[in-house]
Amino acid sequence: MNKAQITPLLEKYRQGSSLEQPFYTDQQVFECEWEFIWKKYWLFAGTTAQIPKPGDYFTYQAHNDSIIIIRGNKGEVFAHYNTCRHRGSLICLEEKGNTPKLICPYHQWVYDKDGCLLKSRLMPDDFDRSQFGLHPVNLRVVNGFIFISLAADPPDFAKVMKDYEPYLKPYDIDRARVAFTKRYTLRTNWKLVAENFRECYHCGPAHPEYCSAVIGANLRESADEELAIKRVGWQQKGLAINNVNFEDDSFHFAVRYPLRPGVQSYSLDGKAVAIPMGEHEDYDAGVVGLVVLPNFWMDAVSDYMWTMRLTAVSPSQTVIDLAWLVDADAKEGTDYTIERLTDFWRITGEQDWTLCENNFKGVESSHYQPGPYAPIELDVAKFADWYIERMREGVLEMADA
Amino acid sequence: MNKAQITPLLEKYRQGSSLEQPFYTDQQVFECEWEFIWKKYWLFAGTTAQIPKPGDYFTYQAHNDSIIIIRGNKGEVFAHYNTCRHRGSLICLEEKGNTPKLICPYHQWVYDKDGCLLKSRLMPDDFDRSQFGLHPVNLRVVNGFIFISLAADPPDFAKVMKDYEPYLKPYDIDRARVAFTKRYTLRTNWKLVAENFRECYHCGPAHPEYCSAVIGANLRESADEELAIKRVGWQQKGLAINNVNFEDDSFHFAVRYPLRPGVQSYSLDGKAVAIPMGEHEDYDAGVVGLVVLPNFWMDAVSDYMWTMRLTAVSPSQTVIDLAWLVDADAKEGTDYTIERLTDFWRITGEQDWTLCENNFKGVESSHYQPGPYAPIELDVAKFADWYIERMREGVLEMADA
Amino acid sequence: MNKAQITPLLEKYRQGSSLEQPFYTDQQVFECEWEFIWKKYWLFAGTTAQIPKPGDYFTYQAHNDSIIIIRGNKGEVFAHYNTCRHRGSLICLEEKGNTPKLICPYHQWVYDKDGCLLKSRLMPDDFDRSQFGLHPVNLRVVNGFIFISLAADPPDFAKVMKDYEPYLKPYDIDRARVAFTKRYTLRTNWKLVAENFRECYHCGPAHPEYCSAVIGANLRESADEELAIKRVGWQQKGLAINNVNFEDDSFHFAVRYPLRPGVQSYSLDGKAVAIPMGEHEDYDAGVVGLVVLPNFWMDAVSDYMWTMRLTAVSPSQTVIDLAWLVDADAKEGTDYTIERLTDFWRITGEQDWTLCENNFKGVESSHYQPGPYAPIELDVAKFADWYIERMREGVLEMADA
Repeated sequence: MNKAQITPLLEKYRQGSSLEQPFYTDQQVFECEWEFIWKKYWLFAGTTAQIPKPGDYFTYQAHNDSIIIIRGNKGEVFAHYNTCRHRGSLICLEEKGNTPKLICPYHQWVYDKDGCLLKSRLMPDDFDRSQFGLHPVNLRVVNGFIFISLAADPPDFAKVMKDYEPYLKPYDIDRARVAFTKRYTLRTNWKLVAENFRECYHCGPAHPEYCSAVIGANLRESADEELAIKRVGWQQKGLAINNVNFEDDSFHFAVRYPLRPGVQSYSLDGKAVAIPMGEHEDYDAGVVGLVVLPNFWMDAVSDYMWTMRLTAVSPSQTVIDLAWLVDADAKEGTDYTIERLTDFWRITGEQDWTLCENNFKGVESSHYQPGPYAPIELDVAKFADWYIERMREGVLEMADA
Repeated sequence: MNKAQITPLLEKYRQGSSLEQPFYTDQQVFECEWEFIWKKYWLFAGTTAQIPKPGDYFTYQAHNDSIIIIRGNKGEVFAHYNTCRHRGSLICLEEKGNTPKLICPYHQWVYDKDGCLLKSRLMPDDFDRSQFGLHPVNLRVVNGFIFISLAADPPDFAKVMKDYEPYLKPYDIDRARVAFTKRYTLRTNWKLVAENFRECYHCGPAHPEYCSAVIGANLRESADEELAIKRVGWQQKGLAINNVNFEDDSFHFAVRYPLRPGVQSYSLDGKAVAIPMGEHEDYDAGVVGLVVLPNFWMDAVSDYMWTMRLTAVSPSQTVIDLAWLVDADAKEGTDYTIERLTDFWRITGEQDWTLCENNFKGVESSHYQPGPYAPIELDVAKFADWYIERMREGVLEMADA
Repeated sequence: MNKAQITPLLEKYRQGSSLEQPFYTDQQVFECEWEFIWKKYWLFAGTTAQIPKPGDYFTYQAHNDSIIIIRGNKGEVFAHYNTCRHRGSLICLEEKGNTPKLICPYHQWVYDKDGCLLKSRLMPDDFDRSQFGLHPVNLRVVNGFIFISLAADPPDFAKVMKDYEPYLKPYDIDRARVAFTKRYTLRTNWKLVAENFRECYHCGPAHPEYCSAVIGANLRESADEELAIKRVGWQQKGLAINNVNFEDDSFHFAVRYPLRPGVQSYSLDGKAVAIPMGEHEDYDAGVVGLVVLPNFWMDAVSDYMWTMRLTAVSPSQTVIDLAWLVDADAKEGTDYTIERLTDFWRITGEQDWTLCENNFKGVESSHYQPGPYAPIELDVAKFADWYIERMREGVLEMADA
């Protein structure tokens, strides 16, 4: 889909309606999205809790790129493209591990954790190793959250860091324990997942467990009174309560909202599932919700944090990587069990994955046409606006051919 | 493949020869086929016997479209595109079921069986539901056979209905029992299956069971005398005997022909496999064969009917859905067994699926070239003519770009 | 990728560096490779040892073409495109077998082993069978090695035959026993396998077993002295010692090199694994290595021969067919066991397949860039030169469109 084809499609967009079919199904639109959005903005890669010790690393497959995220000797974090500068081999073959140096398995070129080429045996004496370090990836760490950008010149991230710091500090993510991870590979377009996570129009019928924990999620009751009460308490404890909304030119969001009275955590019975996390001393922090477009969603309660990393693999395939984090000192069996910790979001998440897959199947129809968002879906409409605007910007820079 | 590429390919066609390779293997030719043939003509979807009660439905996946076929409260049948007018979700998720209303699983918009939007909770007061019914699909029911057309303005179907009525009435399909269904997914082009079913040049060597039941199928004996005798009897019983041939501008076919003397049914031992079906009172009705291009084949004997729905999924993939129908009052175990009922066509069909898959593998060769049909393959040649003519018509309407 | 796109890519090539990414990953480059290289040169199909008796055949799937290689009545070998001249069906359905005639399973057209159409039942009297023989494939047999060319006018093969004859004669391949075969389907580009097999830069770290058998393979010791001693002995026994190097316009290679002193064979313990093969009377023949670009590698020691047939299926998929040949009179269990015979190359080969698959994954990165070959990788650089030159020649003949 070249500029001449995508432009009229963008012009057909009407605010308040879902997108035209090709935005969900077309391979070339998808390639444009990687250029105009995924490789331009910041992507959540994981948390420093996954790599506590020097040499701990994990890899993230983003489009055709495998990215190495590795902990340095002083606790710092580096990100590199996982491709040897000799003949291109993958260097780290596993999704996670620990290694003192990054050694290519093919011909044993040795890189330091910071990406510098240390050894390249049998190369000529005049070979200039300084020119052959691993290609670096832009990286920001916000209180234990690792964001990368595949852009050469990514957008400013300072505002996100400033806004998120007060929300995240109490969780002490850098020291947290990654209690459980799970991957889902869905047959759906990534934006249908993003849309799903921006509205609660579906929550009442689809998410009984979620609605039993969150006041107002069923849209049949108001959370205003409870929220007003709670905000006073949160403020007294020094917990962040300044919501951050999406602005025309921003790509992040933060909110704190209350659980139903008497509910301590995101759990099937409403009771806590682990010891309070980080600096929290009780189960009264409500829910912190964060979003960084295009690929990060997080919900945290007083005793655990649930992160979701979304990766667009093709127009019809989206990978969801989930992680459950608990307090650094929480011990499995004593302080939490995997089953109780994960039940709530496993059940709620799988309800959503099914909705998103069925949404995609219907959107593939020759007779799908953009439909009207309900007033309660305003945030979905805003996401669509943001998306269309990013695509417009990208198309403006496209060659005419 | 644009107009400039497909036109010379069409011009290379020579009557009496198989088609040029791209007609069997090229993705863009395949897309043209869906536009020029599959979405223009009538497709067999199934039988009313599959949906006896109000609210019974089944879905049919045709290209990117899932179609809902549902029985109304008065016995009537409706067909809708299976995509919600809100955000496009699939509405019916299963291949068959029963439901009093069509309720989208995502946000619970509720449609009536006829497709009208009944409820759309939380939409604005001025939301005009009458504009958001399910998109309808053209539909014709012929004595229990359900045909749909994805065309806005499909070709006239009255002639097919008139011609088929006398053939189908005795089977009382609307009340029949669907005894067994089976799906095959073949690695072959749909036209190679269509060609296979239009000739018996292969029957002698490939189908010993079929040849043992059908006089003349082996091409080594004449069926003329037997046919002449039988026709007198059929006529006396009021059974239809007027063959319907493909004409230049028609797309359906009907024939009645005799079984071998002493053979009662399509079965491995020649004996009946069920009680006579519908109005039949003996096992002497021979074989009724029907074809509606591009996707329907049917053979019926006195005691059962065998329908074949063919669906082109890609140039190299074709789905075959088979159903075996018996009399409304036939009881499994007493009046028929699945094994005896299905053995004949399971064996014969699988012989054909293997031939069609091997035919496709050879057609993929760089050195495949259209070969001459034998005189006995005249009906294959006619099918090729029909196909090429439809493609020519379609190409004429294509833009030049 | 048309001429205008591929030309600048070819111009970016710098000798001594690995190839630009699209040469490894692009589908249209891949299609060009089949036109410019794979369908222009000679491909190793197999050995006459696989088809000892008249009517023995095997098939080789090369790109979209299945090729039949069949032994004639007088011991000669024929190669045909495996597509019937009637409606194109595959004729030989199995990968190997024996048949007195080639009979199409669809409508029973009968071809002789030489491809002539013998019978075509029910065709008109004036049907000229002489015009409907199987399409022949160019074929050369070199001391039991069968090479085919899909080109109408393939390059001269006489030099290869002349150079190989003295190397191969002692193995008596035509009478040899094919003791074992194995297929691997790799997710890698075929050229990455070819590059892997043209250098031993990786051998030290990656192939401990290989380095324990072959002096110098670890690049930490010289094989020169041992080679000089051995060459005298080989010459006295009449064994070929004239190495054949790749020249600018040639595509084959031959070499004999020594095993480590005391090592008799390619085996894990260095001891022989079978009786000496063919005319060999001891275990002192060293290693004979042959390469014919683009798809043939062979290593032979005194007691067995290991052939590798490489087939490019897509940019990201390569099939490797391995065969282990032993002396005609060797008896399994007594003279060799499959385990001891195959351990060495199974282990060494699988080390390479892993390297090649990881190499491909890294080459897919957006930040892969051609890297410098080490001096010891000179033969890889030569292969890259040869490849680029073939592509340049092909592009020159492409239409401009």
